[in-house]
Amino acid sequence: MGKTLTLAQWTLRTGRSAIQEMMSVANRPDVLSFALGLPAAELFPAEDFAQAVGRVLSGEPRALQYGLPFEPLKTHVVSLMARRGVRCHEGQVFLTAGAQQGINLLSRLLLDGGGAVVCEEFIYTGFQQAVEPFGPRLLTVPTSPDAGMDLDAVEDVLRAERPAFIYAIPDAHNPLGVSMGVRERERLVELARGYGVPVVEDDPYGFIHYGDEPAPPLRALEEEWVFYVGTFSKLLAPALRTGWVVVPEWLIPKLSIVKEAADINTCTLSQRAVAAYLDAGRLPGHLAALRREYRSRRDLIIEALRKHFPAGTRWRVPESGLFVWVELAQPFDGAALLRRAVEEERVAFIPGGAFRVGGARLSKGMRLNFTNCAPAALEEGVRRMARILRSVESHEPARAGSLSEV
Amino acid sequence: MGKTLTLAQWTLRTGRSAIQEMMSVANRPDVLSFALGLPAAELFPAEDFAQAVGRVLSGEPRALQYGLPFEPLKTHVVSLMARRGVRCHEGQVFLTAGAQQGINLLSRLLLDGGGAVVCEEFIYTGFQQAVEPFGPRLLTVPTSPDAGMDLDAVEDVLRAERPAFIYAIPDAHNPLGVSMGVRERERLVELARGYGVPVVEDDPYGFIHYGDEPAPPLRALEEEWVFYVGTFSKLLAPALRTGWVVVPEWLIPKLSIVKEAADINTCTLSQRAVAAYLDAGRLPGHLAALRREYRSRRDLIIEALRKHFPAGTRWRVPESGLFVWVELAQPFDGAALLRRAVEEERVAFIPGGAFRVGGARLSKGMRLNFTNCAPAALEEGVRRMARILRSVESHEPARAGSLSEV
Repeated sequence: MGKTLTLAQWTLRTGRSAIQEMMSVANRPDVLSFALGLPAAELFPAEDFAQAVGRVLSGEPRALQYGLPFEPLKTHVVSLMARRGVRCHEGQVFLTAGAQQGINLLSRLLLDGGGAVVCEEFIYTGFQQAVEPFGPRLLTVPTSPDAGMDLDAVEDVLRAERPAFIYAIPDAHNPLGVSMGVRERERLVELARGYGVPVVEDDPYGFIHYGDEPAPPLRALEEEWVFYVGTFSKLLAPALRTGWVVVPEWLIPKLSIVKEAADINTCTLSQRAVAAYLDAGRLPGHLAALRREYRSRRDLIIEALRKHFPAGTRWRVPESGLFVWVELAQPFDGAALLRRAVEEERVAFIPGGAFRVGGARLSKGMRLNFTNCAPAALEEGVRRMARILRSVESHEPARAGSLSEV
Repeated sequence: MGKTLTLAQWTLRTGRSAIQEMMSVANRPDVLSFALGLPAAELFPAEDFAQAVGRVLSGEPRALQYGLPFEPLKTHVVSLMARRGVRCHEGQVFLTAGAQQGINLLSRLLLDGGGAVVCEEFIYTGFQQAVEPFGPRLLTVPTSPDAGMDLDAVEDVLRAERPAFIYAIPDAHNPLGVSMGVRERERLVELARGYGVPVVEDDPYGFIHYGDEPAPPLRALEEEWVFYVGTFSKLLAPALRTGWVVVPEWLIPKLSIVKEAADINTCTLSQRAVAAYLDAGRLPGHLAALRREYRSRRDLIIEALRKHFPAGTRWRVPESGLFVWVELAQPFDGAALLRRAVEEERVAFIPGGAFRVGGARLSKGMRLNFTNCAPAALEEGVRRMARILRSVESHEPARAGSLSEV
């Protein structure tokens, strides 16, 4: 009789992720995709970056060797953080293979099996996946596209117990698009300090802002209790898998152990190539161009939503990031609507329920990415979405919606 | 009163790793280092690789985007495996950020908290670090630089319980340097099959062999119960962080979930650049040159050991890989000897006790890398080591050695 392989328990609880499903769909050339959080590939500074790689590879042979974290890149990170109002030094910077690894390493640092984490009830699926193998208790608090994380609820949780950390995306929340106000940032930081619970501040989008003066990251307000996660994925290019965390200096050796266990070191070539690109001083100009182009795409999708989406649909114009969160008048079955959208109209999005902790079939929300669609195709995509939504309205009886299904 | 940060329990058990310590020492330009498993940087095919990167970056903008695993690279992996006698197809290949991530992902796939793993009592520290956060029971079996893993002991363990997996390095064992015989490979595979326990076959060095016909990897003998871990780190360059695992096809979607949670995807640029390098057909010539040069360095270090090391020292000439394992006549205090070697003679190595599961102060063994030292410096390094060993012999009373301290 054949034996059967035994896998770790958590594999029984987890299926293919919504993002994995969408990655396949979004790659189909005939589908207009609002689904994934992809930057615009045509805006990557490919030529400048190729020159940077060329300089790196024609010089030092250690660029292809195992290596310690590349100090000059840490120095660039310190300058970048200073532009956001964050004071830190190289000794507090830890380089990672992108923000996802940053979240993952911090989770391993802070979280024991069965431990508790505070997060919003709608939250980035990658965070949920990063903590999943620890079998954590996710202490969810309400959130909304208008006001963000419910801080009264956070305080209620902290009064009752001491979780391993609070996970927050203060700028351009994923999926809701909301950015926290200055007063709310101050309050969250005071809660962290007062209750002795660190905040993991995930900030992939904070540099991609469309207004004049964005609020400072939490890390600008608090040095000891905020662990900042940053990345070059949206600033430069995701393929490089280069990001960083900023933490109290005494935690760096512990992060090194987790990192070494994970993948020895971050791609030395990427580290050195990003540093060489930054040495050339082109990032500020590149960021300005990115913001200009993304803002124009944001305005186009908002205009198209106004023109084509059914009455009763709500959205807020995002001040930063890559997404607009749209709420329909009625909750809908996310998987069913997505399937029809792809099959009948060749358009893709992510249903809000996919971001709900534990998953939800029904939701009024959907997340639309506006940076990875050619400007000329944005209105056509929204038109296709609108056709599907109208046909749903006419076929399905309206359900009573409640805010908790948003 | 200030609050104190609470970290995950495992951080209390783990200090800075021997490899991390050595990485700093080995980087000191005045130290001759036999310590780390570094390939020779001057042999990296930097120019061919730069051309490959250039081709990639001047073409497809998706080379800098998030992306699905790059299929053409999987096809190259299938061909590489075929040269080792392994039959597999692209659907069984999963791309990783190097072998360390391969071990890490497989551990998360197979191992529950507190679960059991079979490994040798002297084993690669990166494996111990990868499983450490799961708080596993490491069921150690005896091993030796002459015969490798004690398979009778493995069978005894499997008779008593069903561990999550067996970890093995059949070619160029790290740290012992030994390669398993064909009969032993067949027996290990039969044990895995018979008891329904998978073997994680870690094979970073199998392609770096110095004899004519190396034995086939375990994966060539068994498709279902052997999970193979490979890497381009030693074939091409470690900086790229590109490796692979070969597993039964039904496990690939589960590995994708673990991988996405870890770091979204493997550096797209590295994947495409490695594929472009392989497209050009230069790998076989490069590998032949590597083997030639490394064999010559191996012969040089062995000759120097013969000439300078004290009588009673033992070693075996390794048939593959980057290390020679040397055993002194008496056990020594590893940390103390290493400190003196670095301070007094500016030479570094890794004491055998560092590889012992749980760590050991005393050991008769030491691991010497011979690939990262310029040929002209190999004898000088051995001479420095020998001076330290002689001064220890004359200062310390001989201790009674036992095989269990090897």
